[in-house]
Amino acid sequence: MSHNSFGHLFRLTTWGESHGPAIGCVIDGCPPGITFRVGNDIQSFLDKRRPGQSRFVTQRRELDLVKVLSGTLESNDGTHTTTGTPIALHIDNTDQRSKDYGNIAQSFRPDHADYTYFKKYGLRDHRGGGRSSARETACRVAGGAIARRVIEHLSPGARIRGALVQIGTRKIPAAQWGGNWSSDHINDNDFFCPDVDTAKAWTEDLDRVRKAGSSVGAAIEIIADNIPAGLGAPIYGKLDSDLASAMMSINAVKAVEIGDGMAVAELSGEANADEIRSGPNGQPQFLSNHAGGILGGISSGQSIICRFAVKPTSSILTPRRTIDETGADTEIITKGRHDPCVGIRAVPVGEAMMALVLADHLLRHRGQTGR
Amino acid sequence: MSHNSFGHLFRLTTWGESHGPAIGCVIDGCPPGITFRVGNDIQSFLDKRRPGQSRFVTQRRELDLVKVLSGTLESNDGTHTTTGTPIALHIDNTDQRSKDYGNIAQSFRPDHADYTYFKKYGLRDHRGGGRSSARETACRVAGGAIARRVIEHLSPGARIRGALVQIGTRKIPAAQWGGNWSSDHINDNDFFCPDVDTAKAWTEDLDRVRKAGSSVGAAIEIIADNIPAGLGAPIYGKLDSDLASAMMSINAVKAVEIGDGMAVAELSGEANADEIRSGPNGQPQFLSNHAGGILGGISSGQSIICRFAVKPTSSILTPRRTIDETGADTEIITKGRHDPCVGIRAVPVGEAMMALVLADHLLRHRGQTGR
Amino acid sequence: MSHNSFGHLFRLTTWGESHGPAIGCVIDGCPPGITFRVGNDIQSFLDKRRPGQSRFVTQRRELDLVKVLSGTLESNDGTHTTTGTPIALHIDNTDQRSKDYGNIAQSFRPDHADYTYFKKYGLRDHRGGGRSSARETACRVAGGAIARRVIEHLSPGARIRGALVQIGTRKIPAAQWGGNWSSDHINDNDFFCPDVDTAKAWTEDLDRVRKAGSSVGAAIEIIADNIPAGLGAPIYGKLDSDLASAMMSINAVKAVEIGDGMAVAELSGEANADEIRSGPNGQPQFLSNHAGGILGGISSGQSIICRFAVKPTSSILTPRRTIDETGADTEIITKGRHDPCVGIRAVPVGEAMMALVLADHLLRHRGQTGR
Amino acid sequence: MSHNSFGHLFRLTTWGESHGPAIGCVIDGCPPGITFRVGNDIQSFLDKRRPGQSRFVTQRRELDLVKVLSGTLESNDGTHTTTGTPIALHIDNTDQRSKDYGNIAQSFRPDHADYTYFKKYGLRDHRGGGRSSARETACRVAGGAIARRVIEHLSPGARIRGALVQIGTRKIPAAQWGGNWSSDHINDNDFFCPDVDTAKAWTEDLDRVRKAGSSVGAAIEIIADNIPAGLGAPIYGKLDSDLASAMMSINAVKAVEIGDGMAVAELSGEANADEIRSGPNGQPQFLSNHAGGILGGISSGQSIICRFAVKPTSSILTPRRTIDETGADTEIITKGRHDPCVGIRAVPVGEAMMALVLADHLLRHRGQTGR
Repeated sequence: MSHNSFGHLFRLTTWGESHGPAIGCVIDGCPPGITFRVGNDIQSFLDKRRPGQSRFVTQRRELDLVKVLSGTLESNDGTHTTTGTPIALHIDNTDQRSKDYGNIAQSFRPDHADYTYFKKYGLRDHRGGGRSSARETACRVAGGAIARRVIEHLSPGARIRGALVQIGTRKIPAAQWGGNWSSDHINDNDFFCPDVDTAKAWTEDLDRVRKAGSSVGAAIEIIADNIPAGLGAPIYGKLDSDLASAMMSINAVKAVEIGDGMAVAELSGEANADEIRSGPNGQPQFLSNHAGGILGGISSGQSIICRFAVKPTSSILTPRRTIDETGADTEIITKGRHDPCVGIRAVPVGEAMMALVLADHLLRHRGQTGR
Repeated sequence: MSHNSFGHLFRLTTWGESHGPAIGCVIDGCPPGITFRVGNDIQSFLDKRRPGQSRFVTQRRELDLVKVLSGTLESNDGTHTTTGTPIALHIDNTDQRSKDYGNIAQSFRPDHADYTYFKKYGLRDHRGGGRSSARETACRVAGGAIARRVIEHLSPGARIRGALVQIGTRKIPAAQWGGNWSSDHINDNDFFCPDVDTAKAWTEDLDRVRKAGSSVGAAIEIIADNIPAGLGAPIYGKLDSDLASAMMSINAVKAVEIGDGMAVAELSGEANADEIRSGPNGQPQFLSNHAGGILGGISSGQSIICRFAVKPTSSILTPRRTIDETGADTEIITKGRHDPCVGIRAVPVGEAMMALVLADHLLRHRGQTGR
Repeated sequence: MSHNSFGHLFRLTTWGESHGPAIGCVIDGCPPGITFRVGNDIQSFLDKRRPGQSRFVTQRRELDLVKVLSGTLESNDGTHTTTGTPIALHIDNTDQRSKDYGNIAQSFRPDHADYTYFKKYGLRDHRGGGRSSARETACRVAGGAIARRVIEHLSPGARIRGALVQIGTRKIPAAQWGGNWSSDHINDNDFFCPDVDTAKAWTEDLDRVRKAGSSVGAAIEIIADNIPAGLGAPIYGKLDSDLASAMMSINAVKAVEIGDGMAVAELSGEANADEIRSGPNGQPQFLSNHAGGILGGISSGQSIICRFAVKPTSSILTPRRTIDETGADTEIITKGRHDPCVGIRAVPVGEAMMALVLADHLLRHRGQTGR
Repeated sequence: MSHNSFGHLFRLTTWGESHGPAIGCVIDGCPPGITFRVGNDIQSFLDKRRPGQSRFVTQRRELDLVKVLSGTLESNDGTHTTTGTPIALHIDNTDQRSKDYGNIAQSFRPDHADYTYFKKYGLRDHRGGGRSSARETACRVAGGAIARRVIEHLSPGARIRGALVQIGTRKIPAAQWGGNWSSDHINDNDFFCPDVDTAKAWTEDLDRVRKAGSSVGAAIEIIADNIPAGLGAPIYGKLDSDLASAMMSINAVKAVEIGDGMAVAELSGEANADEIRSGPNGQPQFLSNHAGGILGGISSGQSIICRFAVKPTSSILTPRRTIDETGADTEIITKGRHDPCVGIRAVPVGEAMMALVLADHLLRHRGQTGR
């Protein structure tokens, strides 16, 4: 029921605003005996999401150094072992500069949460958007990093990987992604792009957008491999239902697709059916994966494939018509340090949400069935 | 946490299989003092979803007569007044014919939940797919009908309407839908189609599909008008996150879009911004609705727009390769009475899910803010 | 969050009023593959709780025949096997006679829920007290019966037993209860009393109460043996916290004790310590059980001991001063068919609540730890 | 579902161990626009619970200075206004001295959570008991302080007050407590004792206990006045059920009573009935309060009265027989700095839990009924 918690048995609660002293999260329900090291296992993911790493993301400079305040036993070599009690993670805010936001304090940025927050709560924290700041997603990435360790522990061989697959109208060729994807390319460009040529084109595209003080949307794909069959539940605990909720909860996301997604509307039953053959080791071998690894809300053992679209940030330099808190007409431009394409940093966030959903479902499935 | 419940303060729990004696649901948390009549306010929506009404939906013949077993005071004229206690709704199954399913008892239909249920639970009820049958959605429609009454009571003027907007590759022209839509057309054809010409074309399309023993996907759009600003919450209680979860939980749905949906990936910040002007009565007037009525997870007062895609049913007459419960290769065709386009009947189900989400958020918002 | 649901992974939702057509419940989260027979495994517990079985309980005559409407596969010999999907249980009401309540329709019975329901909901169902009727507890007993089967499956040798240990000022001698208790006596009297002599004395006591049109309170003890160590959680998921919630939710209960209960206020640390010795098979042997089998919110492997007190029913023949719905002074007597000691029928209900809590915690523990 | 969260709409999540760097909590669902000052409104309650304030509580010296890290707007004069987003409270641990616990690292203190934690998680943090330390209750007090502000805002005139009413066999005379209680005495002694003479006697009693290295149990009473009628729900959301859960979740509590508590077992229906007369202003006037302000799980508008018993701490100087982690017999004494009567510091904790339950139910009631 909590508005700032996610998950059931493996549960993340986040708190904090971009312009307060810190942000953080509490992970409840983590199995005991899971080991991790802060640098390798958490900080590395936070560093991927961290702003200020290229000219294509906000120039806000946060170190995003995470501290573990509870829930583990730390050995002398720095290895943490979870105790089964709540794990509190804490990240200090080091670069607030709230004066940047002074000129938008009384007006509502079109397409931003300014107006709706004001209507909901009757007041709002205009500095950095309060809770609607993308800064909150650092907590998801930190919590998702622990979730990954749980998944690796319970389901050896499992792997979660994400990439940017579209910026504006330019999509990566499908052949470059999916089964053929390798980590060689994805981390050697500014976009988590698995295709060298597309990364080059995006560089030019985004330089234009950035210099114009504009912004552009994007699409992200997250894939989880080697996840066991059986996760999820038939009706309101469907694995894809929880993934849809998870991805749609990321800032600026407007659509979520599983497998073939919106394109299934065009398919025939024959084309859509993922036929099955008896595979090696008695495991079923699916001949295609239109379903994105989920049938009837339950994982099939195929790769779980999820895509989502991120809208362009509403913080742009072109004046837009809007109203202020008194209801009067005005115009607004946003001068803060913002992302020309917020979709880039959504890649590690999407991976984290996938990890959080899967860790929760692994525990729920084990609770009900013992497997 | 419950796998068969949906919502928080306004909460629906459903039970039942298509081949058992009955299906039903319990609605918990309904405000007291809401009035309804079974015929006008519940049965009318069930009748829209009911199978057997045209040659384009399953020929299973269920009366779907709903009984109210608790939670209301019934006056002599048949008006029910809710008491605030749980409302149990009960629908007898009258047309099971489980022999139709005999030939698929041991094999897994490709793209169906057969295989994943078996992997999850170690056993399965092959008759009609057990819980994965679309029959469960009758309970959503019944529960959603009560939710509509709650919304109408708390937010006078609110209206929820849905339509089929795509079958296969044929989409309705955008101008026929959206603000210009009227109920004149939508209920006078077999497809919940707001456009007369498209309905005719779909008739021909689907006759071909039906005669071929095939099936086809579809897309549905659900719109809620006159919903107050302020519903939802910033992070994990986002209104769009809950809508995504709700729609993705409907059988065969593979994608959910809010507002411009996947298309936002292509937009610039300028194009995507819904500019605002001071409107009559001091209410803001939005100049466009790319956001689909939700900003930062909170309703803006604009129409809430949600779309989802439904895959073609996997029950087709063309043989598909699959395996049986022993893991051996086999082929399968499905002879049962099935829908050539399950998306048609998803229209009233999508409306019901929209109603359930909104009723829950109206109560949650009132709980936290008193408004 | 739901007001009519109990438990998390193993979850009971109940519905229905005593004067409607039926009552029932939905059990969600039951593991698949659990077998039961309706007669032996559910009906037998309902029969223990059923009214009209002696002159000391309400003369309302309900057959309380339970029907299983979903969630199982039934074999030809009547054995049900759970499928992992929601189990709906349904009990028709056969003896409503709502005219009995006519004279109390407008006044509030002192110490009854009449007044508080009216204040909460602004209206009330005066027939039989609506949801506050003890009739709802039949659903708990039915759900608890399934929970017992889960416990027996997951924790072989587990046993749950309850007894009445006090009526009015007369308590059973402690030596007759606890470890020495046997089922020989408890089911051969009208009180679930483990002591023959006390049962005789209670017969005389209660005949006096009954003939005077009065009522009297009682205390019940519920013991669970052979429950594994490790169930529960340190803080807000404490096993005793959930037991307290469960027992206090039973109608008319005003206190819950674990182990020595209120008496611990008088103890010294030395007296209260349950010392431990190394026992046979390497299992710890506790030398006493002041803690009632729960330490720090987690089961220790000792017998779990819980007691609760039930107030006398407020339905008595002696006039009591009260007010009516307009706020005017009046007097009231209650002529309906009621229990001189509602505590008697609380014994099977307390057993059911213990079973529901333990089944839920077995699944939650397995989910988090895999054990 | 979360094991470390409490409440539904107003929800507290706590984290931290006594021997880590800090403890803290997150409050989710707080209404916007509630004002508080850290010193007066939070720190003052923490100071009441703080150890080291008299020779009768643990000599551990913690400053317990609370910091607000999110969820408010702070004005120049230090007034915080809640924004409706999660409020993170943080308390640094300043006095760990974990070496004190070295000698009990491998053995299980009888009646302590050592053994059960080890059995649940397969490992344990022996320093200060990990999560089972009473230190966690500082977070409840901090969260409860915010809850008080919510209650005062929504229900003007509401007041929550607690006192110690029993240490060992010595109880305060009933006349000194209840309606006649005044704050004159309760804060001028070391025990939160409302009676001067009893406070003197307890001083002598506890000096004996303390010098003997022993400990003793206690009972606490918490009263909430001027709480509106209508809070709670009929079945599993009963107000008393949630209070029972709340109080039983406090460390070392073994029993919870509402109103007359266990004594109702002895009462007749006539004696137990709280008769009602038409009072001034048309409000009902109850002639007694056996029910403790709750009927059928819903508040009646009378004072809500709750009592609970706290067992003596298991940390004593007299050797007790136990086993170690290998299962071998041993003896143990506990030399750490502990409370001779942990019940004393449970008074502000009990008040906090009462506040948390009431704040949650005020919001839940408003959500469902709009009142």
